[in-house]
Amino acid sequence: MTDTQTSKTPLEFYFDFSSPYGYLAAEKIDELAAKFGRKVKWRPVLLGVIFKATGAAPLTMVPFKGEYSKLDFVRSARFMGIPYNPPSRFPLPTQVAARAYYWLHDRDCAMARAFAKAVYRAFFVDDRDISDMNVVLDIACDVGADRAAVAEAVESAEIKDRLKAEVAAALEKGVFGSPYIVCDGEPFFGADRLPQLEARLAGKEF
Amino acid sequence: MTDTQTSKTPLEFYFDFSSPYGYLAAEKIDELAAKFGRKVKWRPVLLGVIFKATGAAPLTMVPFKGEYSKLDFVRSARFMGIPYNPPSRFPLPTQVAARAYYWLHDRDCAMARAFAKAVYRAFFVDDRDISDMNVVLDIACDVGADRAAVAEAVESAEIKDRLKAEVAAALEKGVFGSPYIVCDGEPFFGADRLPQLEARLAGKEF
Repeated sequence: MTDTQTSKTPLEFYFDFSSPYGYLAAEKIDELAAKFGRKVKWRPVLLGVIFKATGAAPLTMVPFKGEYSKLDFVRSARFMGIPYNPPSRFPLPTQVAARAYYWLHDRDCAMARAFAKAVYRAFFVDDRDISDMNVVLDIACDVGADRAAVAEAVESAEIKDRLKAEVAAALEKGVFGSPYIVCDGEPFFGADRLPQLEARLAGKEF
Repeated sequence: MTDTQTSKTPLEFYFDFSSPYGYLAAEKIDELAAKFGRKVKWRPVLLGVIFKATGAAPLTMVPFKGEYSKLDFVRSARFMGIPYNPPSRFPLPTQVAARAYYWLHDRDCAMARAFAKAVYRAFFVDDRDISDMNVVLDIACDVGADRAAVAEAVESAEIKDRLKAEVAAALEKGVFGSPYIVCDGEPFFGADRLPQLEARLAGKEF
């Protein structure tokens, strides 16, 4: 936060492309923010790296809770009116998608946003393997990117370092899971906190 | 579930007296169920025993997430319109309170319910040490129980075994945290799932 922060500061939206609740938040966050004149910074991270730092485990691998979470993904999606099909391979590594996102973002922010949404739908609606380089490149193409340029970029040391720096910065901010949304310095963890975020943005007393 | 199960089967409400989200659910669950002609079975459990079985850790001791959760307890309580003061000692052992609950329950169900609500408020509103036998006995007295009888009961092998059996039965059912609510065989974990439970009870399509 800086001296120039105003009430119109963009929300920061941290997520992993393999996170079901991240997907659910992604389907709602821009519209929610826009209702209150806010923009959203999308920041893909790698939960694998974050969990290694914090000692956490992927939700679906936690005894008992893991089985429940699979039921809860489906039910929460229906409750929120979002299409969701449990992916046949889950969770998946997401560094290629995240690298492609940051490379696109530095060139065309709107294209990167469209790419991120398309990656999530490819995984959680169409059961495509978003850890596969070709799938990522196909999605990038579909939103208007240059396939060869993205293919080269995601293998570059520069973009690998960029992603590492983004994940390190997220950890530094306290990001421990996905989705993790920061609004005027206040953290909201989980798609199920969107109602609280909305009440905060609406200036409701609570 | 049995052949005689009807749509009016009571909800099962599993909670630990030291669980903030359990407290939040406890403040709402009876009223919510009553709107749909349902009753609620209250079943205190011991998260310490459950976490030992599942390998989980108390939320506030999880790196990063623990700090966030303290903020989230306060905010969620305000969002739900429930008084909440962070206890100065937390979490606390709750076996004495849970034993007293089951002993009262077998004698006077309504008194046990009043006792459970009073224990939660003593801890999360008035910052009383609910691991202290005398505090538990004071609360039992306040709801009309015989202090000496409760004092004797909570030390008896019979009620100790009863609590162990209840916790074992909960684990058998898949209870891995607090609050954990079962509605017609379907589990709902967390106070933040009450809106989904309500929609389910209302027969909304989702």
